Amino acid sequence: MGTDGYDRYREEVIGRANVADTAELVDFYHDLEAQHAGALWTVANKIEPWEPATESVPIVWRYDRLRGHVLRALDLVTPEQAGRRVVYLANPGRRDVTAAVGWLYSGIQVMGPGEVASSHRHSASALRFIMEGSGAFTNVDGHKMTLGRNDFVLTPNGTWHEHGVSEDGTVCTWQDGLDIPLMNALDANFYEVHPELQQKVGFPIDDSTATWGNAALRPAGETWSKRYSPLLKYEWEPTYEALCRYARVTEGSPYDGLHMDYVNPHTGGPPMTTMGASMQMLRPGQHTKAHREVGSFVYQCAKGSGHSIVGGQRLDWKERDIFVVPSWMWHEHVNGSDREDACLFSFHDLPVMRALGLYRVEGLTINDGYQPLIAA
Amino acid sequence: MGTDGYDRYREEVIGRANVADTAELVDFYHDLEAQHAGALWTVANKIEPWEPATESVPIVWRYDRLRGHVLRALDLVTPEQAGRRVVYLANPGRRDVTAAVGWLYSGIQVMGPGEVASSHRHSASALRFIMEGSGAFTNVDGHKMTLGRNDFVLTPNGTWHEHGVSEDGTVCTWQDGLDIPLMNALDANFYEVHPELQQKVGFPIDDSTATWGNAALRPAGETWSKRYSPLLKYEWEPTYEALCRYARVTEGSPYDGLHMDYVNPHTGGPPMTTMGASMQMLRPGQHTKAHREVGSFVYQCAKGSGHSIVGGQRLDWKERDIFVVPSWMWHEHVNGSDREDACLFSFHDLPVMRALGLYRVEGLTINDGYQPLIAA
Amino acid sequence: MGTDGYDRYREEVIGRANVADTAELVDFYHDLEAQHAGALWTVANKIEPWEPATESVPIVWRYDRLRGHVLRALDLVTPEQAGRRVVYLANPGRRDVTAAVGWLYSGIQVMGPGEVASSHRHSASALRFIMEGSGAFTNVDGHKMTLGRNDFVLTPNGTWHEHGVSEDGTVCTWQDGLDIPLMNALDANFYEVHPELQQKVGFPIDDSTATWGNAALRPAGETWSKRYSPLLKYEWEPTYEALCRYARVTEGSPYDGLHMDYVNPHTGGPPMTTMGASMQMLRPGQHTKAHREVGSFVYQCAKGSGHSIVGGQRLDWKERDIFVVPSWMWHEHVNGSDREDACLFSFHDLPVMRALGLYRVEGLTINDGYQPLIAA
Amino acid sequence: MGTDGYDRYREEVIGRANVADTAELVDFYHDLEAQHAGALWTVANKIEPWEPATESVPIVWRYDRLRGHVLRALDLVTPEQAGRRVVYLANPGRRDVTAAVGWLYSGIQVMGPGEVASSHRHSASALRFIMEGSGAFTNVDGHKMTLGRNDFVLTPNGTWHEHGVSEDGTVCTWQDGLDIPLMNALDANFYEVHPELQQKVGFPIDDSTATWGNAALRPAGETWSKRYSPLLKYEWEPTYEALCRYARVTEGSPYDGLHMDYVNPHTGGPPMTTMGASMQMLRPGQHTKAHREVGSFVYQCAKGSGHSIVGGQRLDWKERDIFVVPSWMWHEHVNGSDREDACLFSFHDLPVMRALGLYRVEGLTINDGYQPLIAA
Ligand SMILES: [Fe+2]
Ligand SMILES: [Fe+2]
Ligand SMILES: [Fe+2]
Ligand SMILES: [Fe+2]
Ligand SMILES: [Fe+2]
Ligand SMILES: [Fe+2]
Ligand SMILES: [Fe+2]
Ligand SMILES: [Fe+2]
Repeated sequence: MGTDGYDRYREEVIGRANVADTAELVDFYHDLEAQHAGALWTVANKIEPWEPATESVPIVWRYDRLRGHVLRALDLVTPEQAGRRVVYLANPGRRDVTAAVGWLYSGIQVMGPGEVASSHRHSASALRFIMEGSGAFTNVDGHKMTLGRNDFVLTPNGTWHEHGVSEDGTVCTWQDGLDIPLMNALDANFYEVHPELQQKVGFPIDDSTATWGNAALRPAGETWSKRYSPLLKYEWEPTYEALCRYARVTEGSPYDGLHMDYVNPHTGGPPMTTMGASMQMLRPGQHTKAHREVGSFVYQCAKGSGHSIVGGQRLDWKERDIFVVPSWMWHEHVNGSDREDACLFSFHDLPVMRALGLYRVEGLTINDGYQPLIAA
Repeated sequence: MGTDGYDRYREEVIGRANVADTAELVDFYHDLEAQHAGALWTVANKIEPWEPATESVPIVWRYDRLRGHVLRALDLVTPEQAGRRVVYLANPGRRDVTAAVGWLYSGIQVMGPGEVASSHRHSASALRFIMEGSGAFTNVDGHKMTLGRNDFVLTPNGTWHEHGVSEDGTVCTWQDGLDIPLMNALDANFYEVHPELQQKVGFPIDDSTATWGNAALRPAGETWSKRYSPLLKYEWEPTYEALCRYARVTEGSPYDGLHMDYVNPHTGGPPMTTMGASMQMLRPGQHTKAHREVGSFVYQCAKGSGHSIVGGQRLDWKERDIFVVPSWMWHEHVNGSDREDACLFSFHDLPVMRALGLYRVEGLTINDGYQPLIAA
Repeated sequence: MGTDGYDRYREEVIGRANVADTAELVDFYHDLEAQHAGALWTVANKIEPWEPATESVPIVWRYDRLRGHVLRALDLVTPEQAGRRVVYLANPGRRDVTAAVGWLYSGIQVMGPGEVASSHRHSASALRFIMEGSGAFTNVDGHKMTLGRNDFVLTPNGTWHEHGVSEDGTVCTWQDGLDIPLMNALDANFYEVHPELQQKVGFPIDDSTATWGNAALRPAGETWSKRYSPLLKYEWEPTYEALCRYARVTEGSPYDGLHMDYVNPHTGGPPMTTMGASMQMLRPGQHTKAHREVGSFVYQCAKGSGHSIVGGQRLDWKERDIFVVPSWMWHEHVNGSDREDACLFSFHDLPVMRALGLYRVEGLTINDGYQPLIAA
Repeated sequence: MGTDGYDRYREEVIGRANVADTAELVDFYHDLEAQHAGALWTVANKIEPWEPATESVPIVWRYDRLRGHVLRALDLVTPEQAGRRVVYLANPGRRDVTAAVGWLYSGIQVMGPGEVASSHRHSASALRFIMEGSGAFTNVDGHKMTLGRNDFVLTPNGTWHEHGVSEDGTVCTWQDGLDIPLMNALDANFYEVHPELQQKVGFPIDDSTATWGNAALRPAGETWSKRYSPLLKYEWEPTYEALCRYARVTEGSPYDGLHMDYVNPHTGGPPMTTMGASMQMLRPGQHTKAHREVGSFVYQCAKGSGHSIVGGQRLDWKERDIFVVPSWMWHEHVNGSDREDACLFSFHDLPVMRALGLYRVEGLTINDGYQPLIAA
């Protein structure tokens, strides 16, 4: 009956549905539809695939192509009109849910000196990775933080938050990462505007980092019962130093190089319940082997340049470029320099996969671990 | 520009996006689209709703209307062709993802005496609630179990499983509940057919219940490291007795009556990582107050009759009828009898909501806690 | 220098301390003593033994020898004078810390009809195992429970508790088990008398069992944040039935027969933080193999008769007799009947050993797993 | 009958045992003793005290008085004879169990250049705090670490370990802290000598610190299933920097000043199951208020000088002096300098107290929070 018959998902495999359409059956299917029902065998092979088949596609967004558009937003709309001036990244396979990959949203936000956004909170968890400019700050539940290039910052679900740039700063851009699409998919998204639009600074500047950002030490009297990290800002310098130190004592992962996860120092686990983040260093000339994981990843190059091969597609990147790795898709990374290391920041939904017992990983065994390129 | 302009989600609220389309802006939006990007303020109010707005609708499937169709499947297709003869329930708002509500699949399966399905396993978690007939059995990783009316059975993710009806049994029907749509949405679904099509019985019949189904006692030497319950079958008689015993010492919940959760005896938590199940008893004449929860529910009436009001819609039910409560939708339950108790079985995705920190519940405060009916 | 020189723990093993006393060294030792110090090598082999060498000895207390003394207490002292009329069991090796074995206290309490003890609470955790009589009750934080033969009851640390026998009851005896010696050893024991001497009954009688004593079901709305079980009474009938059911599907343990742990239904773990309890059934004629565990055990025979071999000593027991198994001591159990099963109740400190990562178990490999008897 | 009668623990308080000896009762007590039993009311008030009454006494060991004795051990015994050349600290109230306080052992170990101790392992957990000298190292399960002044190092239970000083080093001393007395009290202590006496170096030097000692970052691919910290060495410099940074954003604790716990970065919890450790900074001139805790503490002054008042006794200390705080004893700390901060290292058994649910803390409310001194 062709590709839109009821039998278009048939498979000739024992244990799989394999029912040809007949007039009697099609009548039966129509009867079921009238009852808001259907015959499982007409869709079983579609909804029970042999392995995940994502709708997301591998793609890179070059910052030099986007930057001009992002800055144009400064002139086109005011913060009062727009709420936030953000250019979001739309995966061609996930435009309907406004996702960069899987159920993860990402955008590039821009703010000028002296601007500040209104405070609000939501069920969605958010993170930021600072790209350009000086003087940016954020205030999360009264904890005000100064933000510099390559700093990684949390605004966890349920926290009041507002961002801004100081009067003596410059135009700033940063990458936003959120699980908005997932919260909507799960029918679990709530939103509130702060009753006073702006919240107060309730603690010494950068107190969260001074209190919780010390290696293997924690304040003895502090209690913490939230599900997210009490450490809200992870600065670039100690992160890069940590990778260099780690590089001296380990080979690293064949698939991911020198790969470290940002953690909640209170638990040793991921910084938020639904999103994790990592920084990985590729040694000069390193070309990692391919593997695939259940989970979706948004990458930003933090240092250096190179390319990744994702699902057989080559994605070239340099500092500030953003690219994605969809779930269960082969990927490998290449540092383009023989002299400098390259660093890739990423955020992902592995905490969701692990919380639900769904995480898997598999290395490519053919071709010495390298994917053949697919003609685009 | 009307309902399909870029400005169709504008809200006149401080802190929300409120940007009118202009020719210059529309040009800008087109430029962004060419870069696989967009302006957040054109969609912000849509993707950050004030509260969840589910696509699922409240609906009841009456068993006396479906039963004939279900039995007809016995004649129309063989188990070999169909894999399983199941009529699935399609929520009008979720037909695209084959869900009964939210990301939960449900169907009614039928099997004749002497039939047995081929063994397989998948990432999706499954459960069964036995509706009709005698002689049904299931085999989960070698643990063979006999199944009777209103028994609740697990076939957790990753377990080999097969179902059948003994030669001396009768035609049997049961409700299947699975998280197939969620597994697909998360790009995490894997499927395998058992290499020998049929698995062996590796333990004494019903050993799981004899070993783990004892109140507040567990085998001293047994270790268990799986993420699902070692108890695979929860029988109806002790469940009903438990509710009767509980009824003698408690008022119960104003929203849910005498409400008990099936648990994993190894942890006291939900039986599987992604789905939970409950049985609740309504006393004769009881009319509970309305509340709403983040989470999706599929109900089956196990005993008695009555109706529920879900999102302002009255859904009448009697034994074997199935209905759903979508996420964050007001619901209240009414026992139609003044003399007999009524029992409602349900399964739901609260373990997902709790694992991700998203669960909320709220009682209706107006109108003494009862919803006004909405004209259909 | 003989057995009381400083060198009396010398061992001729490489890596162990092996320093002979000399005049110069003894002077040195005296100098250190004056500074509240000492030389480690004079005691190292003593405080770092090759394996645990307990001071507790295996011993059985025959109820027919103790019962008369216990009942005599009814006449000798009033409850007001004595607080509680209890005969405690003193292990010959642990009389200094009033322990039956290790750091576990046990006693036999007696109460006459119409008597009730005053309410109090303490850091020590307590449990009871009912031996004789009818009409006994206990009230734990307002939860009043009726107690019958072989029922196992908790009075966890920090709970107000009082015991009594109803007017129409008979003289009752029960075994008390507490971790009083451990609490004292850890400098952690607190005690309070109830400000009103008697506490109120705050819930329906036996509500804890009706609410939490149902197999693999828990009240859906109840929250529980205490570190002990919300189920306070474990009745004998369902326990015995569970063992019979379990016996039909398992061989059981070669060392412990049909062995089940009482658990906290809220967690699946031990009922209290510092003490666990078990019931085990020996089939007619069963003679288990010897093993040893890090942990101390107090046993009471609940049904039948037989003997145990503990540290090479034969301990004969019948219903109501109490015996102990010290830590890391070989033990095996023998049912004396070829026709009836025998049941042994026990409580122990395994939760402490497990919480601190110290639990070990080892089966005897020589002599087909049976200990040679040691002449007493 | 005087202080050694059976009634010497009587209390005239309702709810407490208050039975005077009589000839008949004393006969009864003798009868019970013959049965390895006793009457609870003769000991109840002793074994159920109103609050903990520790046998440990507050005491300080001045390093300038001990140092000469410690160094003398270098000449008096060889490492081969002594195993380790250690002077242990004996609390006057706990000499029988070789404890410095409660169930905690502490000693001062000395080693000369080129010496190395034989490798062994035990159930007891151990830690070291480096006092003097250069070139010390330790090897824990193949992880060799270089040790400097004020570094804190773990040798967790069950790990093979050996210590030494390099040929080009100087005489080194360090404080050992162990839970040996607790392991013996719990009948849980095992000991083994390494089959080859010396173990190999299996990893790059100091790899544990490079891998796990980075703030809020952990190696992405590493798994860890041990109950102790994968970070084995906590260096002094970053610890002191952390305290300085923390001091800029907090008042600190009124009882403990700027007080940080060393943690297991894999869990955020204590570094070992049975012992924790802390470093606290007292600001110039700071005099903390008194509080008391369930738990025993061994302190060493790491920087500066001052005194503590423990149980009403003044204990003066300067760098390298060691003192103890027994369980549930009031204590307060005073920095003797108005210009320099002072730092106190401590280790303690709070992880045991917390694991068993026994931790309590209470601030002194009288006298503005300061203890009156008790004449010695
Ligand atoms: Fe936001
Ligand atoms: Fe990867
Ligand atoms: Fe299936
Ligand atoms: Fe509900
Ligand atoms: Fe008590
Ligand atoms: Fe045993
Ligand atoms: Fe050692
Ligand atoms: Fe303190």
